[in-house]
Formats: sequence, C-alpha cells, structure tokens
Amino acid sequence: MMNSDIGRIALRSKEAAFHLARASGEQKRQALEALMEYLMREEESILKANAQDLVLAKEKGLEKPLLERLSLENRLIGIIHDIEQVLLLPDPIGEVFEQEVLPNGLKLEKCRVPIGVLGVIYESRPNVTLDITALSIKSGNCALLRGGSEALQTNLRLVELIQQSLHDAGLPKEAVQLVADTDRSVVKQMLQLDQYIDLIIPRGSSSLQRFCKENSTIPVIMGGAGICHLFVDESADLEASIKVIANAKTQRPTVCNALDTVLVHSAIACELIPELVKRLSPLGVSFRLDPYAMELAQGPSCQMAGPQDWDTEWLSLVLGVKVVGNLNEAIKHVQEHSSGHSDGILTRNQGNAEHFARAIDSAAVYVNASTRFTDGGQFGLGAEVAISTQKFHARGPMGLKELTSYKWVVRGDYHVRS
Amino acid sequence: MMNSDIGRIALRSKEAAFHLARASGEQKRQALEALMEYLMREEESILKANAQDLVLAKEKGLEKPLLERLSLENRLIGIIHDIEQVLLLPDPIGEVFEQEVLPNGLKLEKCRVPIGVLGVIYESRPNVTLDITALSIKSGNCALLRGGSEALQTNLRLVELIQQSLHDAGLPKEAVQLVADTDRSVVKQMLQLDQYIDLIIPRGSSSLQRFCKENSTIPVIMGGAGICHLFVDESADLEASIKVIANAKTQRPTVCNALDTVLVHSAIACELIPELVKRLSPLGVSFRLDPYAMELAQGPSCQMAGPQDWDTEWLSLVLGVKVVGNLNEAIKHVQEHSSGHSDGILTRNQGNAEHFARAIDSAAVYVNASTRFTDGGQFGLGAEVAISTQKFHARGPMGLKELTSYKWVVRGDYHVRS
Repeated sequence: MMNSDIGRIALRSKEAAFHLARASGEQKRQALEALMEYLMREEESILKANAQDLVLAKEKGLEKPLLERLSLENRLIGIIHDIEQVLLLPDPIGEVFEQEVLPNGLKLEKCRVPIGVLGVIYESRPNVTLDITALSIKSGNCALLRGGSEALQTNLRLVELIQQSLHDAGLPKEAVQLVADTDRSVVKQMLQLDQYIDLIIPRGSSSLQRFCKENSTIPVIMGGAGICHLFVDESADLEASIKVIANAKTQRPTVCNALDTVLVHSAIACELIPELVKRLSPLGVSFRLDPYAMELAQGPSCQMAGPQDWDTEWLSLVLGVKVVGNLNEAIKHVQEHSSGHSDGILTRNQGNAEHFARAIDSAAVYVNASTRFTDGGQFGLGAEVAISTQKFHARGPMGLKELTSYKWVVRGDYHVRS
Repeated sequence: MMNSDIGRIALRSKEAAFHLARASGEQKRQALEALMEYLMREEESILKANAQDLVLAKEKGLEKPLLERLSLENRLIGIIHDIEQVLLLPDPIGEVFEQEVLPNGLKLEKCRVPIGVLGVIYESRPNVTLDITALSIKSGNCALLRGGSEALQTNLRLVELIQQSLHDAGLPKEAVQLVADTDRSVVKQMLQLDQYIDLIIPRGSSSLQRFCKENSTIPVIMGGAGICHLFVDESADLEASIKVIANAKTQRPTVCNALDTVLVHSAIACELIPELVKRLSPLGVSFRLDPYAMELAQGPSCQMAGPQDWDTEWLSLVLGVKVVGNLNEAIKHVQEHSSGHSDGILTRNQGNAEHFARAIDSAAVYVNASTRFTDGGQFGLGAEVAISTQKFHARGPMGLKELTSYKWVVRGDYHVRS
C-alpha cells in the first residue's frame, strides 16, 4: 500500500496537514482570494477543459441531467460567490472553549483543531471540487479529492489553479490534491489508508455511501438520504399546512430534505386531503394514498400506495399520504419509516408539538415549518460539506465547525498525579 | 444476519433504545440505585459465579495477571462506589444548547440525545460490565455487551442483576444485554449490524481495536494506545522535572498515559540525565538511551536504545531517553513517534510552552504536568468509557457527554423556504 501511487499521494496530504493546521487566518484568506481571482481570470481555460469532458461524456451517452451537472457554463460566478461566503466566515481553528481550573490547580482547556486529511469521493459534479476546497482550506484541513472520471479534465484544471493559490499564500500545494487515477480500485485503496486520511466524505448516491461504509477503515460521514415526513394533527391551520406541504414537496423535489410522506389525523382527513390533492396536482404532484385517503381523493394524480412506498425517498413530485388515528400512530409511522433526516409536525397544540419533538429522533425535527430548511446555509452555518444522518460526531448540516476536532491543553506547575 | 441470534438480540437493543432515550432522570437514578443494592445483597452469588470462571480459567492455564483481572474478590465495594459516582453526575440528556432565532423567525436549538445502542467488546475484566452499564444507563444509551469467554458465568450473573434493576425502575431489561455466545465469529457479525448498533467500543488490546476497525461498518472508538513523551527544555526546573518524570513513568506504568520517552535539551543533558538515572533506577526503572545520553549515564539499568524503541508503548518500567538540540527537534520527534495520546513539555519559558502546545496535536498536550492526568476522573468528567486517540466525535477521555449526540429542533409559524 505504502508503495502505491495513492499511498504516496496520501502521505503528501498528511505531511501538508501539519502546515495547514498552523496556517494563519490571513494565509487562508489569501489563498481563497487568490483562488477567486484565478477562477475569474481563467474562466476561458476552465471552460475549455470542461468542454473536453462534456464532449467525451456525450460520446459515452451520458443523460441530460448528468451532462448538466458536469457543465460549468455560466456557473463559475455562482461558485466564486460561494467561495466568498466561506471566506467571510470566522476562522474556527484555535478557538479555546470549555476552560476550567481543576481543584488541584491544573488549567484545562479545549482548543479547536482541524481533523487533518479529508478524503472526498464524489461523482460528476466539478463544483464539489471548489466547494470542498473552500471549506477545507478555511477549516485548516487538507483535501484529497477523488472526483468522477467524467469531470477529470475540469478537475485537473481546477486543482492546478487551487494549488497555485495555495502556493501564492505560502501554503503547501499538497493541501488540496486530486487523485487523477480514475480506476475504481483506487477508491477501495483510499478507504484503507487510515494512517494518512482522517475522514471520508462520500458525496453522491447511497450506493457510493454504502460502498464506503463497508470498505473503509476510516470514519465515513453517512448522510444525504432523506425519507421526510410531515404530520398534520387535528388542530393544525389547514390553509397554512397546505402551503408548508406544497413548499416541502415542490420547492425542490430532487433533494434530500424534500417531503416524502404526509400523515394526516383522521379528524381532519376529509377536509384536508381533497384540498391537498386539488391544490398540489396542478403543481405536478402525484399522490400515493393509503386506502382511507384514497376514498377521500380520487383523480388522475391519485393512486393506491404500495407497501414499499412508505420506505421510498421519492426525489420527485410523488407524495405519499396516509391517515393516522392519533399522534402516537403518527410517531410510530415516522419511527418505522423515517431515514432520520427531517421530520415535522404541523399543529396548534403546544403539547402535541413538544411530545412530537421529544419522541422523534431525526437530525432535524420541525414544528410548523417546511422540511426544506435542513441546510447549512438556512441554519446559518454559512455553507455545508454534507448533511449527516448518523449520530456520531455531527448530525444534520455540517459546516466549518463540524470539520474540526479539539485537543485538550493542560497547563500546570510541575503537577504530579497522586 | 437478521435471522441469526445476534441479529435478534441487537434488534431488541434497538427497540429498547427508544424507551431508554425517553427515560426520566428519576428512572435512571432508580435503576442505578437498585443495581447498587443488588450488588451488595448478592455479593455471595456473584462471587460464586466468579469462582466458577476462576476455576475454569486456572484449568485453562491463564496467567496470574489475567486471573487477577478476572477476580471480583474484594472489588465489588469499589465498583459500587464507582456506580454511585456516575449516579451523582448530572443527566446529560435533553440539555438544550446553541439556541438561536434566525432572521426569518425560525427558532433553532440543539438538543442532546443518546447515541442509541453501544456495542461493547471487551476481554476478561467483568468490572467493565458494570462500568459500561452505569455510563450507558445514565446517558440513556443501550448496551450490547460482548465480554470475554473467561468471565461468562460472572457476566451472566451480573447482567441478571442489571436487568432486574432496569425492570424495577420500569425500564426495558433489554437496555443492557449480554451476548452469551462466546464464539469469535459473533464479534464479526456484531460489527456488521449497523442497522441496530450505533457505536462500537472495543475495550482491550490494540489488536482487538484493529480487528474492529477493519471489520466494522459501524463507527468504532479507537483509543487507549499511548506512546507518551515529555520534553525537558533548557529552562526547566530540573528537580521538579525529575519528580514529574518519575510520576509519569512509575505511578502506574502499565497504563496508556504512562510516560514512554523523555526528550532532553542538550544544554541540560549533562546535568539532568545522570540525576534521572540515579533517582529513577531505585524505583525499578530501566533506561533505553540514545548514543549521546548513553555517554552521560552508564550503569546496570542503562542500555542503548534500538531503532524500534521510540515507537514502543512500554507499559512497564522501561523509559526511553533521547537528547535533542532544540525545541523544534523535540517537536519533530514527538510528531513522528507519538500515538497522539498525551505529550508534554517541562519548561519555564512561556514562549516555548505555547509553541509546543500549538505544534503538538495530541489528544492531551501538557505544559509542566505529568502525562498521567489524561483520565476522565482527573479531568472532572466523573468517569470515562474510553480515551479516544482519534479526531472524530470526541478526543481524549470520553465521559457521559461524549456518549451523546444531538438533534436540531426547529420551531416556526408555518414557515416555508423561499
């Protein structure tokens, strides 16, 4: 392993990590400013490399949504703006928290440090290369990037510019490296390099995540899969509820925090469900209803739900609708079918709201709000590297702080333990 | 997997986790009090079961230190005291932290929740069964215990009493379960049950930890291995330094935070090293010295260090001694050879102290104190489940709070994302 290419590349990341952890806020700012400058100045050469990737991808017959993800045409300005947002966030490194003087006089503090080397495995989207770079540099981490083969020429050009920016700021260019070998076996090797890589961030499909989890000896951020629920209880404002459901389902149906299933209390089902179907069908929503809901709303957009439907992340304009007899039945359904991403209750009953918020153990639990808010930007973190649905380390949107660890610094006067 | 015994046992843990997460502080207190009571009342039957294990272990030819670890003779009172200490700690669950009202009026908070099901894999020491039980119950987590075969009868009896205590407090007895199948293959199965188990805690040898890391699809707490350093710089108080070194090396040499290597600045080497050998040799310490140190201190307790010695966790009264030319050389040695557990500097120079504290990235970094302080009890955490040397989730001593996660609770007034 040590002698393989990927082993040698990862070792260089580890060596760079020592320097990046000690980089000043000013140096990190310089590197990101230089990067923004290069991206503006070099738009033409970036788009040229991107065009090479696009030609190859079309020849390979990639479908239109994938080609769109791959293209940087008209997107660099938005990406540069995102880098600026990260640049403006406070530097998390070196922050001292939980200070304490122990009874024996030892002074104890926790000091925030970078995690070290982030191994990022992603698919066709080259904007991830720049997103992760900005977050990594700002948080003092090194990034070892393994992008998809479809974006290779684009990524090679972007990483050239990133490394030039690092160099300009007096930082080691190995702080951000691209694994250019696009052979699948390289990913498996990367996942075993626990002596060099501290954290694996898979950005992509759940099968990619599963592959990482099963093959990695390095901690893996699991996240992104969202089977999201809203329960409308008998006290809810129905008009407002329909607006929240419409937002959660239709504002951006292809993402993880989009709504998948609405649970409706039986006392309001007759009133809510027909209205919901009437209002959301024109927006393109089609419904999978349980037998009771099916009796209340028929039409071309309605069909009976199958047993798998409650466990499906739709990522489209399909919405499951189920009638439940009471709050506990709603909670039980969520517990059994939620992926632990984002679930909520719509209610005017404070007791129900608090009971639901306590009982549901998802990364984000909502009372009277759309599930679409689960997002680093929306939560005020400035940016996010992932939305974690696991309970270890960080949960929900992961921003700069979630890319850090801490060390204990203990100061004494030649203290000995008795 | 689902149909295997271990799968069914783990599923029961997962089901119990829902209830334990919602247990009141009072119920958890009752369970631990009942357990203390049972341990006192049932000492005889516990020791009888323990004696069965000891007989078998002797027949199998287990060595004396292992037999000592296995024995509960005269140890229950101390264990009961430790449970009481955990009982008296504040309940971490439900704590609300990082509250914020976003510009759009959404109320955001983080609420502390248990991790869920802890899979604990350990070897012969039956006191771990009770340590982990107390920490798990108090933190609202369920424990799935896989103890060593040598302690099976003892563990079976202890878990009977634990489950009775849980039942008395109105909590599900499956909150603490023992995997009684001592076949090695069961551990491997456990490590793959990521749908039921949220965290693996291996308590034992580094080979056990490595096995868990390599075979687990569940996050694993890595820790415990400590190659610990103290650097004595040219400004240090030498008399006080010798006392700190003696404490760090000899107070309890068999544990992970005991000192392994002393680095000595060349300007004080002639003075410190002979005195160190003179003072520590009578305590049973033997020395592995680099060629320069070897010139300064000869005697029956001194031998030349081999190249592997700087990477050895001694767990005994052996101490490496190396002379370095300056602070940066000391830092470089620590970076290359430390396991990232506990490393320190002894100095009267504030600048050197801060430079060292910044440069060294270990779980605990000391200025003028013994490495022996890295301990949950010493750091005021009340108890510890492990000392983590990884950077993910928690670092250093892990107490109750480090056995928790959080959820985001978001309250709005039918908010939609625009």
